[in-house]
Amino acid sequence: MKKILIQLDTDPQPSVFDRVVAVDAGVDEIFSYGGVNPENVTELVHGAMFTRSPHDLKYTAIFVGGSDVKAGEALLHKVQSLYFGPIRVSALLDSNGSNTTAAAAVRTAARHLELGGSRAVVLGGTGPVGHRVAEILASRDVEVTVTSRTLERARETCEIIHEKHPKARLIPAVPHGGDFSGLMDGCQILVAAGAASVQFLKEEQWDSIPSLRVAIDLNAVPPTGLEGIGVTDKAKERGHVACYGAIGVGGTKMKVHRAAVEALFEQNDHILNTAEVFAIAERIG
Amino acid sequence: MKKILIQLDTDPQPSVFDRVVAVDAGVDEIFSYGGVNPENVTELVHGAMFTRSPHDLKYTAIFVGGSDVKAGEALLHKVQSLYFGPIRVSALLDSNGSNTTAAAAVRTAARHLELGGSRAVVLGGTGPVGHRVAEILASRDVEVTVTSRTLERARETCEIIHEKHPKARLIPAVPHGGDFSGLMDGCQILVAAGAASVQFLKEEQWDSIPSLRVAIDLNAVPPTGLEGIGVTDKAKERGHVACYGAIGVGGTKMKVHRAAVEALFEQNDHILNTAEVFAIAERIG
Amino acid sequence: MKKILIQLDTDPQPSVFDRVVAVDAGVDEIFSYGGVNPENVTELVHGAMFTRSPHDLKYTAIFVGGSDVKAGEALLHKVQSLYFGPIRVSALLDSNGSNTTAAAAVRTAARHLELGGSRAVVLGGTGPVGHRVAEILASRDVEVTVTSRTLERARETCEIIHEKHPKARLIPAVPHGGDFSGLMDGCQILVAAGAASVQFLKEEQWDSIPSLRVAIDLNAVPPTGLEGIGVTDKAKERGHVACYGAIGVGGTKMKVHRAAVEALFEQNDHILNTAEVFAIAERIG
Repeated sequence: MKKILIQLDTDPQPSVFDRVVAVDAGVDEIFSYGGVNPENVTELVHGAMFTRSPHDLKYTAIFVGGSDVKAGEALLHKVQSLYFGPIRVSALLDSNGSNTTAAAAVRTAARHLELGGSRAVVLGGTGPVGHRVAEILASRDVEVTVTSRTLERARETCEIIHEKHPKARLIPAVPHGGDFSGLMDGCQILVAAGAASVQFLKEEQWDSIPSLRVAIDLNAVPPTGLEGIGVTDKAKERGHVACYGAIGVGGTKMKVHRAAVEALFEQNDHILNTAEVFAIAERIG
Repeated sequence: MKKILIQLDTDPQPSVFDRVVAVDAGVDEIFSYGGVNPENVTELVHGAMFTRSPHDLKYTAIFVGGSDVKAGEALLHKVQSLYFGPIRVSALLDSNGSNTTAAAAVRTAARHLELGGSRAVVLGGTGPVGHRVAEILASRDVEVTVTSRTLERARETCEIIHEKHPKARLIPAVPHGGDFSGLMDGCQILVAAGAASVQFLKEEQWDSIPSLRVAIDLNAVPPTGLEGIGVTDKAKERGHVACYGAIGVGGTKMKVHRAAVEALFEQNDHILNTAEVFAIAERIG
Repeated sequence: MKKILIQLDTDPQPSVFDRVVAVDAGVDEIFSYGGVNPENVTELVHGAMFTRSPHDLKYTAIFVGGSDVKAGEALLHKVQSLYFGPIRVSALLDSNGSNTTAAAAVRTAARHLELGGSRAVVLGGTGPVGHRVAEILASRDVEVTVTSRTLERARETCEIIHEKHPKARLIPAVPHGGDFSGLMDGCQILVAAGAASVQFLKEEQWDSIPSLRVAIDLNAVPPTGLEGIGVTDKAKERGHVACYGAIGVGGTKMKVHRAAVEALFEQNDHILNTAEVFAIAERIG
């Protein structure tokens, strides 16, 4: 039975990136659709549900992608609502690479220290990737400071994460006049996940923090959010800090992405979102 | 030489359902197009005709699908008009599953009685599936009563079938005030092929017909057209009547659909429409 | 590692023709996109560039097609501008079959005489195919007369070719009052590459030229540009002239097209345009 992945992309053109990764993850057939939204997805999902026997449904799966993470979340929600009982197929959400990038970033940090009990700061922590980085860290017993331009947005993100992980320790924060220093006291992990061309910190603002062990900047296009980090940095030592740029994390991200696609075909009822993708990242080491 | 199926779908998105079936029927490559109509199909068909040697043209075929059966028929007609001499590829029409569903329904009935010489009533017999059920039954020497909301439409359908099958015995009918009883005297086969949520008969109106042997309801969404039949019923005995719902017929429909796709690649000049699809259904038993 | 071809088509529907050829050239996966233009291609190309390791980038390639050759050229230009350093994939331009048809026409002529030092006339030499025929011939030391409806257009084409091939010997020409006779004195190769239904020459205008050895008409739909040539003519002797119609050249064109697609996967930095496609045509003999 051939493995079929149905790529539901919220952008007009289905992503080449996600298709190549699916091929390299061993998918036999990819059915690619662009411009998919909750209003036009029903027939596509029914076609996945009603064509193979319950026993073979695990060989059909859905990938939700596109540049707009909120649109992807709404689409996954709709997809799940169409399932009933055992008549369902596994689905992975990775709009804008958000889940695999966040999982790779945290997995990368975990190579340098024990996550549990550590402290982290996620700059730009309310965007799709930053939010997911914070969520994963908090789920692993890391105390996470989530920064945003407004305290309201930072609080909102912390509350959403808290609902999923009641034991999470989260601190919403806004740097006062660009002063991040107090926020990072005792921080071991620093992740910058802001929008393109937003520089959060000058070099001397972060590389002098005595507790810092790992700094990750997820901006793929210079300037990076953390001055001094290059996009290709990969475990580059800067004093006592291991530094990573977006491309430096990229190898792990690609492995996680492929492994997540592979995992879809293990059974027919996986829904792979942030927590599940990180569990996969941990499994592949 | 790889088997290529060109899926021409009249809906904006090419059907996932038809693609999965094609994969499971052993097609190597599926080229899927949505929004296809007689005006924009020429280049697609020329691409099928002019790329492989005459000897290898049987490894390329066309599937016409989509939810609108009339649009599919117009498209198939246009496709055929583009062929010349031996430069052609085989084509299958199965818009809205109409041919494979009708073939599966009649094939299912034939498991319970000898078709030839029997009598059938097709409720909703002027819609795309009902019309095809009536056509197939009539072609197998069954006397068929075709019902519709207006006698004019019922007559029109009977005439169209009669043109193809001059020996066909067809009776157009409209139930007077919802009274179907007279129409079904001596009927062995009852098929309901109406629109969603149209209930033709109360339970006592059909399960008491002494001659009735098999009742098939092709409505996949409750309520069924024949009260008392469940969509998953499969040869369920209700007194002397074997009952089938849409999903109960589904297994046979899928087999017929796959076999029809496989048959496309036997030679390069098959046009698989109602009669041909039923012949395939008979062949696979 | 599977060979992936990304088909970027400037027409709304990606060409079936080009997809079938890609399958027959051994491509494992074809990602087909229609309606591609310089404005919406960036993400598609990035998806090709950033998914596989530099070592494996040669297993991903781009095909630029569609009926509009100028649009294809603009698209290829944009694709190339997105590459940087070794992060690139090979690309083939064959909009409207222009490069493979032109290469096949010249390759066909070369079967009948030594190109170097010969003289050719390309009728309709300013259209996409004619221009390429002239360019290839000129690059092989053929003196080429390029005809057009206006001298200005003929000159422009000659100048463009001259920039690429400074040693090229090109003569822009316009037949005066339909009189081509003087233009063809001493000509061995005659190629008609005009628009559909344009007949350049009556039979007696070309088959009486003593020097003529080969006449090729690339118009696939009758009437041909050279009266007396049939579209299926293949090395048909007409006196001392070997004659070819579009379909007669078609077998070679298909071989060149397949070989060009195969060549894409030899390395990751091929840009296959007119000169490169002809070099491939020569290689396959």
